[in-house]
Amino acid sequence: MQRYFIKESQIKNNLITIDESDSHHIKNVMRMREGEHVIVCSLDEEENSKNYLCTISSLGKNVILNIQEELNENNELDFNVTIAHGLVKRDKQEEVVRRLVELGAYAYLPVIMQRSVIKIDASKRQFKNERFERIVKEASEQSERNRLMKLLDIVTVKELINSFDNYDLVLFASVASKNDLSLKEKMKVTSAKNILVIVGPEGGFSEKEIEIIEATSAQTMSFGKRVLRTETAPLYAMSVLAYEGEK
Amino acid sequence: MQRYFIKESQIKNNLITIDESDSHHIKNVMRMREGEHVIVCSLDEEENSKNYLCTISSLGKNVILNIQEELNENNELDFNVTIAHGLVKRDKQEEVVRRLVELGAYAYLPVIMQRSVIKIDASKRQFKNERFERIVKEASEQSERNRLMKLLDIVTVKELINSFDNYDLVLFASVASKNDLSLKEKMKVTSAKNILVIVGPEGGFSEKEIEIIEATSAQTMSFGKRVLRTETAPLYAMSVLAYEGEK
Repeated sequence: MQRYFIKESQIKNNLITIDESDSHHIKNVMRMREGEHVIVCSLDEEENSKNYLCTISSLGKNVILNIQEELNENNELDFNVTIAHGLVKRDKQEEVVRRLVELGAYAYLPVIMQRSVIKIDASKRQFKNERFERIVKEASEQSERNRLMKLLDIVTVKELINSFDNYDLVLFASVASKNDLSLKEKMKVTSAKNILVIVGPEGGFSEKEIEIIEATSAQTMSFGKRVLRTETAPLYAMSVLAYEGEK
Repeated sequence: MQRYFIKESQIKNNLITIDESDSHHIKNVMRMREGEHVIVCSLDEEENSKNYLCTISSLGKNVILNIQEELNENNELDFNVTIAHGLVKRDKQEEVVRRLVELGAYAYLPVIMQRSVIKIDASKRQFKNERFERIVKEASEQSERNRLMKLLDIVTVKELINSFDNYDLVLFASVASKNDLSLKEKMKVTSAKNILVIVGPEGGFSEKEIEIIEATSAQTMSFGKRVLRTETAPLYAMSVLAYEGEK
């Protein structure tokens, strides 16, 4: 069933006022009629969601929905996976962001790395913008997520390492994996609730980056024998983490 | 190290004559010099490969390489995974083909399905063309594969089902998976050497298609709780199969 993400503030007295963009989608793209059903994911300020089955009550400039019942639905993973990704070109970022939403990622964190083709002004750290937010919202609706993947501000490798304490498992892409513990065992040992996976940019990690990451608590994760492109590696990592978490 | 796929017939007396396209790549893209090294994967008529470490001997119109030694390298999976994919638009096919090569797939098999947006003339079954072959070759060289993923001719669902005997495990994407056995157990039980995974087109399988596939020996495979797009599902499947095979 078609679903829409809204803010909790759009709900009043069991009625939901849909914004103009989603109203356009309901009326002109989906061509829905009064009385038809949609699912609404309502996010509070902490981005916790409640899910409602709704009927379309009126099709004005702002569509009005009537809440029928709260749904007990959860398509999210039991743990949060943040993908830290070396800065890559915009079109690759868009594709990776879209697919990571589908695959269940919690957050996307762009990282300034030595071999990134993309160079940014050190003062420009905001990654989130209208276009990326729309991609996340659309992909979340289509893939039936219950929350929106976070788009975090761009960080340096140093800042990334300083944030490791926020995670109970930090994995980084390595061709020559130590492979002491399997991924499954690593997830179990930590009973990981917050996982960070670090993937390099087009040119891979620099030797210095590998050196300073290896000096931390971060653990290697095998990405298989083949060399994955920077836009494929995050999808592999997210697929196998979701698979291990859901099987 | 940069690698190139060649045909066995290009080797004579320990020397390899590179074709004009790859010669251009060596000279003008990689800007390599005489004496530098490349890896060459030589494919015989059955597409078995031998891998050689070579030095650049001369940089004429056709670059000549000198074989130094045969390499004992194998980045392939122990089993063959064929991805049968409902016909989708060309740009999506190209992306899926490229990523499946990186992830280690054995073959890509487009299938005419009821809900495919793309309709083809029943007589036009050849999928392989110059553009797709170039994508496979480039992705194979970049991802350090030892063989080229096969691009199979387009089939109908009926023809697909008739080919099930060629595989020892047939999996199809299901939202509501029976999940009697885990994927790992399924792979073990069959000690699968030839695996077929069937993924629907944009609109998913039709009810009739599900009905006739379920009446066969095909087994359901969970793709997680979220709804994956038709171009994401093959990547998820190939990632977790490679992961199960290599961990």
